[in-house]
Amino acid sequence: MSDPASTETYDPKTVTLLSFSDAVPSFADGSDTPRAYLERCIEIVEAREPAVKAFVTLNLDGARKAADASTERYRTGRPLSALDGMPVGIKDVHETEDMPMQVGSPIFEGWSSGWDGACVYALRKAGALIVGKTVTTEFAFATPGPTRNPWDTTRTPGGSSSGSGAAVGARMIPAATGSQVRGSILRPAAYCGAYTLKASYGAINSLGGFPSAPSLIHVGFITGTLADMWITSHCVSHIAGGDPGHPSLAGPPTLPRPEKPTRLIRLDTAGWAATTEETKVAFDEYLGGLAEAGIEIACRSDDPEIEAYERDLVTLRDVIALMLTYEGRWPLAMYADRDWELLSPRVQERVVAGRELTPEDYAQALEWCVAFRARHEAFADRADGLITLNQVDPASAGMPVGDMVYGEPSSVAGCPALNLPLLSVGGMPLGVQLMGYFREDRRIVANAHWLVHAARGIATPAG
Amino acid sequence: MSDPASTETYDPKTVTLLSFSDAVPSFADGSDTPRAYLERCIEIVEAREPAVKAFVTLNLDGARKAADASTERYRTGRPLSALDGMPVGIKDVHETEDMPMQVGSPIFEGWSSGWDGACVYALRKAGALIVGKTVTTEFAFATPGPTRNPWDTTRTPGGSSSGSGAAVGARMIPAATGSQVRGSILRPAAYCGAYTLKASYGAINSLGGFPSAPSLIHVGFITGTLADMWITSHCVSHIAGGDPGHPSLAGPPTLPRPEKPTRLIRLDTAGWAATTEETKVAFDEYLGGLAEAGIEIACRSDDPEIEAYERDLVTLRDVIALMLTYEGRWPLAMYADRDWELLSPRVQERVVAGRELTPEDYAQALEWCVAFRARHEAFADRADGLITLNQVDPASAGMPVGDMVYGEPSSVAGCPALNLPLLSVGGMPLGVQLMGYFREDRRIVANAHWLVHAARGIATPAG
Repeated sequence: MSDPASTETYDPKTVTLLSFSDAVPSFADGSDTPRAYLERCIEIVEAREPAVKAFVTLNLDGARKAADASTERYRTGRPLSALDGMPVGIKDVHETEDMPMQVGSPIFEGWSSGWDGACVYALRKAGALIVGKTVTTEFAFATPGPTRNPWDTTRTPGGSSSGSGAAVGARMIPAATGSQVRGSILRPAAYCGAYTLKASYGAINSLGGFPSAPSLIHVGFITGTLADMWITSHCVSHIAGGDPGHPSLAGPPTLPRPEKPTRLIRLDTAGWAATTEETKVAFDEYLGGLAEAGIEIACRSDDPEIEAYERDLVTLRDVIALMLTYEGRWPLAMYADRDWELLSPRVQERVVAGRELTPEDYAQALEWCVAFRARHEAFADRADGLITLNQVDPASAGMPVGDMVYGEPSSVAGCPALNLPLLSVGGMPLGVQLMGYFREDRRIVANAHWLVHAARGIATPAG
Repeated sequence: MSDPASTETYDPKTVTLLSFSDAVPSFADGSDTPRAYLERCIEIVEAREPAVKAFVTLNLDGARKAADASTERYRTGRPLSALDGMPVGIKDVHETEDMPMQVGSPIFEGWSSGWDGACVYALRKAGALIVGKTVTTEFAFATPGPTRNPWDTTRTPGGSSSGSGAAVGARMIPAATGSQVRGSILRPAAYCGAYTLKASYGAINSLGGFPSAPSLIHVGFITGTLADMWITSHCVSHIAGGDPGHPSLAGPPTLPRPEKPTRLIRLDTAGWAATTEETKVAFDEYLGGLAEAGIEIACRSDDPEIEAYERDLVTLRDVIALMLTYEGRWPLAMYADRDWELLSPRVQERVVAGRELTPEDYAQALEWCVAFRARHEAFADRADGLITLNQVDPASAGMPVGDMVYGEPSSVAGCPALNLPLLSVGGMPLGVQLMGYFREDRRIVANAHWLVHAARGIATPAG
């Protein structure tokens, strides 16, 4: 499990991952090309993939062909978008016309629809280079794949967007797709030291992918920089649209300028009790720094509304479990009917649990979620956003892909949530989660931009 | 185009289509069997299918095998559900594990996911017999298939659920799936003399099917009787669930008892101006009869709110067209990229129109819809429901599958809407549309039940 290519210890002050946006000016002036950028990525893939195991399938020939076409577009001054030439990985829950979609399950071995999912189609239209399919857990929630954490290959990369987090964290590619119904984008980004935006529910079209708990599904991008995070999300949301019935991500096509938050709500969530001591200390110190910088930090002991919300987060664990189980009845029960033995015990358990649930149980859960969202949105008058962790520990060898507890609130609230790789514990990445309000993605990303500048010691107009 | 098997003239007073519910007691007492019922259906399929052309694909062997299993279940007193043994057709926009899904387009020739869509899976779990895939128009909105109206094979069966309407209208099968984003369930049911319920938005799981304009997609059943309409909708909604994030159809598993409406709003919609004179006369006479029976009928000249709503229905035509075009960008543009020549001019036009639309256009349309739904729901305090037509004419040879104008209001309002085959014009079926309020399907179906009894001269407790 050793990874000779990785001798670094993670230090958020010095570590940088791949940036695509920063390379674009060199494509434009001819001093670099998308093909050369891709070849540098491929070198890293070849060096690190044997130990990191981020990909299920690679299509380097296809990516090279697309890179040459992109290079030609820059040469003639006609790039298709801000993503033209960007090498990307596609989580193996999103369909691609040229590779199977196997969702981490042998029951989908070799399966392909023959078409691109909406986000994949948008990436291609934008000129991005589809490098390969990245590892996910079985049906995006159960048995982990072989992927390892790029910062320590004895540890988990998180899941279910395991391969996307690891590939970006290992600097193989600047961006990869993810999907989340519980914590599956935020968590691997946190464990692997990458940026991500789980945008407002519905902001990025999720059609053409594995329908795991669709009422909570969010598509997002795990990236090496905050700027790449925003441009991929914005561009794909504008080409593919949002989920049907939802508007595209609002805001400018380039990263919103930094805006210093005035007041943030610090959340424990149901995760704090399970969080390791050194992780708690690192987070408390970070919040202390924000307070010193003049940002007011409110918490459960300051405000009965925050306390009530924190108490909701305990119930929320059960509600989200019920929703995933109910919505998984189709298709999981169908897979179970066809080949029970090809499902892991955890999937089998969910199928069995689904048989006990009634439409009334589900209707009650939906009503609970409506009330929870209203309680979340009510904070918009009280604070710029909410701040918490994305992980209970530095990536461990314990729970297969880590506890998803910190991802649950924003998944159910449908609000935007980011992972900001600003901290470390024991030489491993520790992410800060910033949560905003529904369809106010621009505002929270501007706040995130300020926090990143502050952590890096960069002066900003607002700071 | 002549159909020697059909010498009937359509008369709503005497015509009956196949009933499944009525056969079930005979399955239970052994005097009839699902296999024998299926064989009677197959006889009609063999006699009428050459002229009606309702099916793309038949799987009679599969249906017979399923019928034998059902027969055995009744023999041992263990039917799976109220639908056990029901022969059903599946509109060729819903996936089945054993037949291709070709959505009326050569670009999907022979395509199969290998899995059942959610509603198909639910039907199988309920014990229904999947007889075959029924014809739809290209991508459920463009080029019509070969299907003909069973009451006059020189005329259209309506669309896009063309084959489902025709197969039920021809008495080949008691029920078939349909899907609607504009009028595609209500209209073929009306043209073919069948019942249908376009249930409240989200009440029946639409996953595992062709994603045409998913923000407006409704799955429903076209059936020979009101009772079968309700039991199929209820049973599938409870096994497959609603669309993710939506509760299942509320109400009892068997047809709600008749409830006489007190007050109905009569709508012109944008369709009245295009409606043929004889159709107008038939509908006005029908409403006159309801008024004589003591039901108050309100219309646009009685109430400024109704007038305002009627005016909205003109704008609604443009809004729905914009939404379909925008939501069709993926996947239609992707199909266009792969093989432009395999798309009909109408699909090509939609692809081209989609290029001009912006996320802002779509966001505005969504806002308009929210306001329209609120205006619709406000009528719940004023009337039991709304009543109008489902067709501008008795099925014609004019517009390929007829004008969808009468289907648009309920598609956008997301409210339940029924076709009741209570009238005729020139020996062809003329349907009455009854519209209710979001998630109050039971109530409007109870009103519909009363109207059906009244039209048939059946005394009811409430009437």
